Amino acid sequence: MRKVYITGFGQTRVQEHWDRSARDLATSSVLEALERAEVEGADAIYVGNALGGELTGQEDMAALVADFAGLAGTEAVRVEAAGGSGGAAVRLGYMAVASGLHDVVIVAGVEKMSDLAGPAVEEALATSTDEEYEGVQGLSPVALSALLMRRYMHEYDCERKDFASFSINSHQNAVNNEYAMFRRPITAQAFENARLVADPISLLDSAPTADGAATVVLCSVGVAGGRTRAAVEIIASASATDAVALHDRGNPLFLRAAYESARGAYAQAGVAPEQIDLFEPHDAFAILSALSLEACGFASEGRGVRLAMEGEIGLEGSIPICTMGGLKGRGYPVGAVGVYQIVEVCQQLLGEAGANQVEARLGMAQSIGGTGATAVTHILKGPK
Amino acid sequence: MRKVYITGFGQTRVQEHWDRSARDLATSSVLEALERAEVEGADAIYVGNALGGELTGQEDMAALVADFAGLAGTEAVRVEAAGGSGGAAVRLGYMAVASGLHDVVIVAGVEKMSDLAGPAVEEALATSTDEEYEGVQGLSPVALSALLMRRYMHEYDCERKDFASFSINSHQNAVNNEYAMFRRPITAQAFENARLVADPISLLDSAPTADGAATVVLCSVGVAGGRTRAAVEIIASASATDAVALHDRGNPLFLRAAYESARGAYAQAGVAPEQIDLFEPHDAFAILSALSLEACGFASEGRGVRLAMEGEIGLEGSIPICTMGGLKGRGYPVGAVGVYQIVEVCQQLLGEAGANQVEARLGMAQSIGGTGATAVTHILKGPK
Repeated sequence: MRKVYITGFGQTRVQEHWDRSARDLATSSVLEALERAEVEGADAIYVGNALGGELTGQEDMAALVADFAGLAGTEAVRVEAAGGSGGAAVRLGYMAVASGLHDVVIVAGVEKMSDLAGPAVEEALATSTDEEYEGVQGLSPVALSALLMRRYMHEYDCERKDFASFSINSHQNAVNNEYAMFRRPITAQAFENARLVADPISLLDSAPTADGAATVVLCSVGVAGGRTRAAVEIIASASATDAVALHDRGNPLFLRAAYESARGAYAQAGVAPEQIDLFEPHDAFAILSALSLEACGFASEGRGVRLAMEGEIGLEGSIPICTMGGLKGRGYPVGAVGVYQIVEVCQQLLGEAGANQVEARLGMAQSIGGTGATAVTHILKGPK
Repeated sequence: MRKVYITGFGQTRVQEHWDRSARDLATSSVLEALERAEVEGADAIYVGNALGGELTGQEDMAALVADFAGLAGTEAVRVEAAGGSGGAAVRLGYMAVASGLHDVVIVAGVEKMSDLAGPAVEEALATSTDEEYEGVQGLSPVALSALLMRRYMHEYDCERKDFASFSINSHQNAVNNEYAMFRRPITAQAFENARLVADPISLLDSAPTADGAATVVLCSVGVAGGRTRAAVEIIASASATDAVALHDRGNPLFLRAAYESARGAYAQAGVAPEQIDLFEPHDAFAILSALSLEACGFASEGRGVRLAMEGEIGLEGSIPICTMGGLKGRGYPVGAVGVYQIVEVCQQLLGEAGANQVEARLGMAQSIGGTGATAVTHILKGPK
């Protein structure tokens, strides 16, 4: 397999873009990424999008984005794995370049969510559950995560307020990210007083759905040439699945797909968790951050929340997470977030993270679909 | 790139499966394919599915299928390109094996459409159009194809009844296919008298939406070993796009994506159209068959309909098409048909096509999304 470099990236601010459509958001992030990569086209365009059909009535989003980015004709396909769609698209791009099939690939993630109101969005999000056993009972993603959180609190003897550190960290990091939705800090008191969405998950514990698009351009060394010296390299890519329904899992607090994909990525990169300098988890809810930290080996079983409480997930901590705000602070355009994560790891590894800059050579991003049904893990290496 | 063999395949009958869900249909085709391939698992599962979110409330279908096929944990992702989803999934499987990334890959296509009634299905199908410019005006796929057909009739001086040969051929070939939905022949008279759906397209010119799943198992030579001597090889795989909206195309009667992907496939295989022994086009409507025959070089511009009228698309003709019934006769479970096409080409190349057997060494399948927005073309070589 060949080396794969990220030579360009682009992103729109995450917010409710009332005046912009999915094609518009995606196209502007693609054009920004192409400009930075200094290429005019690509051999293929892979688009991560989770809910285009349900929320905007638009399928075949990849052909549409190719067309409006001025690249009609180019091979294009959409990849979907619920909230893990963005990561899955990056993996497909990685496969295409690493294999030698393509030299330049565009990977875009996009979601347009504000055209529909609350209940319709929640219904769309529930398509990531096992519809016939969970969704049909009203078990939406937030409800399933609430079940996991309560079980965690029971098993490991902690309280709702102990999860506050995750949201506080994400909001704090979003303050300095111009692409983030919520650029304001929150306090432990505010977290504790926040309105419950699905007990014990509150409003300040739930990543906000919104509109946005992010893009990376992947190149082989042949195309990137001398620019590889200043580029980020994808040194590992791995994907795994778990039973979709929580009741089909042996231990619901063990995110098997997250564990397996992280294990695969560590093996490919030849590194251990201790060598990872920052980690972008799928923090749709704080409980998922805690379980991901454990599954990926950054905390032992039942210690994920404690790691956060001890400040180790902050920019100065042993494993900084959500360094540009994460899903909670930057916002959660579902099928796009896996690509936002990769863009943000690039910013960190290139020293472009501004006030949020961490000292980093290796960064990891994990994109998750459903309540851990699909997990895609990438490890990136900076030019330093 | 390594050689890629199809060592197993499976399919359910296409019909309205009132008692079976998408997961059930997909799983049974996967298990059948694994048994034939004599493998127990795979390195990855790629699922082509177009409308699971809209029609069944189920996204992340690939993780679900992996789980219920007893393969939870395995890498799995869903690929979507509207009606071209199945072909796009086969291409992803091809990429993974050809590149050396994976040795055994399962590619399944599945669609469950009978849970919702007519208008909801038509609305779901319309997500393959450019929603903001076409779908919103009520331009569903059948309406767009009707525009193309009328333009074709005008440009090339032919009539509605001249298209009858396509449907007659498909229905005739479906009679002997036990997996087909409509196992009865139709007459030219019946075609002429059929109720109009979107003038000039009639009921007997429209492929019936239905439920079904098909699967192929792709292997590298290392795994297939000596069995490659009796296996079908994928000798070319290519994909291309066009503007999604018809009004964005220079000449709407030229299916650019079909042309480009066929050209790419011919180049990769090192063959010319004359060497292809059978062709499975995306015959959602007869006009699409005619335009595909022209785009792929089997007929010159404006001669596709004439080719059919002259009997050249029949089993004894110069280029047999829809040899097991095509979308019109076998049925049209949207995201699955691209995989059904590959299964049927395998049946032909292995001498397992029963009464429909044609003399064939090279077969081609073309999977199309939207009204030609995405096209994925594969050329397969039999063991003879």
